[in-house]
Amino acid sequence: MRQFLIVGHDAPTAPEFSLDDLAGGAGRLDVLCRCVNSAFFLSHAIREDVRVHLVLGDEFTVRFEGDELRRLNPDERSTAALIRTALEHREDAIGHIPAESTPGVSIRRMGFAATLEEAAGDAAVVELHEDGDPVADVEPPADPLFVLSDHRDFTDREASLLAEAADERVRLGPAVLHADHAITVAHNYLDTDGYTSY
Amino acid sequence: MRQFLIVGHDAPTAPEFSLDDLAGGAGRLDVLCRCVNSAFFLSHAIREDVRVHLVLGDEFTVRFEGDELRRLNPDERSTAALIRTALEHREDAIGHIPAESTPGVSIRRMGFAATLEEAAGDAAVVELHEDGDPVADVEPPADPLFVLSDHRDFTDREASLLAEAADERVRLGPAVLHADHAITVAHNYLDTDGYTSY
Repeated sequence: MRQFLIVGHDAPTAPEFSLDDLAGGAGRLDVLCRCVNSAFFLSHAIREDVRVHLVLGDEFTVRFEGDELRRLNPDERSTAALIRTALEHREDAIGHIPAESTPGVSIRRMGFAATLEEAAGDAAVVELHEDGDPVADVEPPADPLFVLSDHRDFTDREASLLAEAADERVRLGPAVLHADHAITVAHNYLDTDGYTSY
Repeated sequence: MRQFLIVGHDAPTAPEFSLDDLAGGAGRLDVLCRCVNSAFFLSHAIREDVRVHLVLGDEFTVRFEGDELRRLNPDERSTAALIRTALEHREDAIGHIPAESTPGVSIRRMGFAATLEEAAGDAAVVELHEDGDPVADVEPPADPLFVLSDHRDFTDREASLLAEAADERVRLGPAVLHADHAITVAHNYLDTDGYTSY
């Protein structure tokens, strides 16, 4: 399974936001929506073997399960609506017990540290870093967990938690990319397995 | 220069559409907006050496010039607003003379064939195709023009025009991707120049 964890630093933690202002009043939720898009969509299919964790304001995590998703569309607005619906169920998420809001989408009362720890499980944690090894030189892990940040940098605490958990530290190319573009490149890297097998 | 031409088959040719319904009433304009995002955005910069041509309903083409853009934001809605503003200037586009609507954005009364012919100029036309050569086996062209379609396949006429114009026929990986994801992968391929030089 491929997992992507994206930290939304300014993302809403309550459902009172407008779908008309995702890049403003909704704390750049547009970035997280594009990450969901990049993680799941193929031209005529959903990548079922993918799980996405969106950490919202270090307070809640909304999880998307590829093999259970039913109502995901590629545009930002409809994905933001799924996140808003998840936040409407936040009071049902007690302790670390999830609350499912729509098929394949659930919310947990977990911040970055707890989500990283749970998602890491048997996965190979991949830190994307400017000083990392070129991705082409790294053997693709079987069950990677890519950890990314939204439009902001990781906080010092997040960066140090991630550095501690990381099994690989890679760089996707010479250019520093938006999180959603990094997800697309990571998928392509894994799909082509070092560009040798297709 | 890197160029991307994307054909919007159902895209609006008049400005009377709602920014609240890009994926529905606006003919999947969300796809074209994400293509613009993928073509231009780096983490903290715009790719200035990029030009994008959005063919709208085979009637108009909206062009984005990387080195002149001033008001581009990553979210779909604000990009759709730039396209709508361009369409408000469509009556000023007479013959093949462009009308600039906002800095770096202009509209031309040109369909697919005329836009392809003009954009091709000295560029290497790259056709993305399932039966193409793996991108890793192809020497990256200096001035590529990637030609893509939105959520629909090319029509037979478009496909035959493209096949005739194409200098290269490549495949980005084993998975068939959305147009915006293909742009991201194409950039990464060119950025890393066969993954040898970074």
